[in-house]
This record gives sequence, structure tokens and C-alpha cells, in this order.
Amino acid sequence: MSNAKVLPLLGPDGQGVAPCCPPLTERPMNAEEAETAARMFKALGDPVRLRLFSAIASHEGGEACVCDISDVGVSQPTVSHHLKKLKEAGLLTSERRGTWVYYRVEPSVLAAMGQLLTKASTAA
Amino acid sequence: MSNAKVLPLLGPDGQGVAPCCPPLTERPMNAEEAETAARMFKALGDPVRLRLFSAIASHEGGEACVCDISDVGVSQPTVSHHLKKLKEAGLLTSERRGTWVYYRVEPSVLAAMGQLLTKASTAA
Repeated sequence: MSNAKVLPLLGPDGQGVAPCCPPLTERPMNAEEAETAARMFKALGDPVRLRLFSAIASHEGGEACVCDISDVGVSQPTVSHHLKKLKEAGLLTSERRGTWVYYRVEPSVLAAMGQLLTKASTAA
Repeated sequence: MSNAKVLPLLGPDGQGVAPCCPPLTERPMNAEEAETAARMFKALGDPVRLRLFSAIASHEGGEACVCDISDVGVSQPTVSHHLKKLKEAGLLTSERRGTWVYYRVEPSVLAAMGQLLTKASTAA
């Protein structure tokens, strides 16, 4: 599967998200870096959002439509609300095809978040 | 530096945090897994908490007292409040030595969070 549709991920100030932040053990984050990174963590800080996110991430082809992931016990408007939050945080991209909107996990942002944490833990 | 003081990290139901959750791409999380993981992400989802956390993680020896990390522009009671939240989420441990309480980053939890994200992104 190609990831040709990866979007440029922009923070509120127009800077890219992925290279924003040093590994957590490298030096204290400044206010701007923390603002950007906290937005991503916050998006995953809700159990329903996290379940929807993992449902999409683990779905065949790395993408899913709302019709594929509606079994987390909340209403479809609630699902849509949470998917919107994940999109706003830059963790998902979406594309309409016919009747359905398909959601895809944004791999570069996940990699950046993972590096933040993994480097921190191995260096500790 | 030794990590001999690593605490057993317990979720609200007494289960360990670190082995709770599959990589995000492996399968959809169930409600219990998502509850545990979301608590950790939420703790890092605040810019001030994230700055305090990175200040501790990057401090000499991987630990710091409140006296070392009070330059993030919030009052000391606010600092203490955020450190308590990070402790409750299992991300920090603390130990009193004389006048000061020293905070240390919990490496096993960070590693578990990093793996969740890193495996997800490389597999996508």
C-alpha cells in the first residue's frame, strides 16, 4: 500500500508537527514544542478515541470507514465527533469515496510521537 | 544509575499497565485496554505537564526535585498539582529526601507507550 497521500502536518503556527520536538530526555521542551506535542497526546487521551484510532490503525489496508468501526458502543454522531478531533490533531486523514468517508492513520505523526517516548525510555 | 526503585504499575483494576496493550495496528483495543492507555496519554496531553515531564526526563540522573523545574512560568502549587497527575498516571515516581521530593520518570511505562506508537507507525 502506498502512503502517497500523506498530508503536510501543520501546527497552529504553520510549522510541521513531526520535527517539532526533541526526545523527552534530551532537554526541557519549550512552550511552543509542548503545545504541539500535547495536542497529539491529548487526542489519544480518551478511551473511545483510542479505540476508534486502534480500530482504524489495525483495519485492513490501514484505513477504515465509519461503517467498519461502529462497534465501540457509542452512537455514530459520537464516533464522528471523535474522528474529527483525531483529524484536527493531525493523527488521521480522511477522504470521501462515494457514500463513505475513509479514515487513514497518519504514520509520520505516530512515528514522531513514538520517537519522543522510545528514545526517552531507552536513554533513561 | 540504577532503576531498582521501579514501582509495580497498576491500572485501576490492579492489572499492570505496561503489558496492557497491543500495538495499535495489531487489533482494535478493547474497552479495558483503552481505558488504561488513554490515562497515560491524557497525562501528557497538557502543555505544562509535558514541559515538566521533559524537564525531569532530561535532568541530570533522570530525576529532579521541584526546585529544579520551576521555570515553566506557573506557580509552585500548579507545578505540584501537575506532578501529582503524572504520578497518578504512573508516569513518575517520587521519593522524599530531606526537604525535597525528587521525581523520576518511570521508564517501563514510557517504553510501553512508545512501542504502541512506534510499531503502529512502522507497520502502517
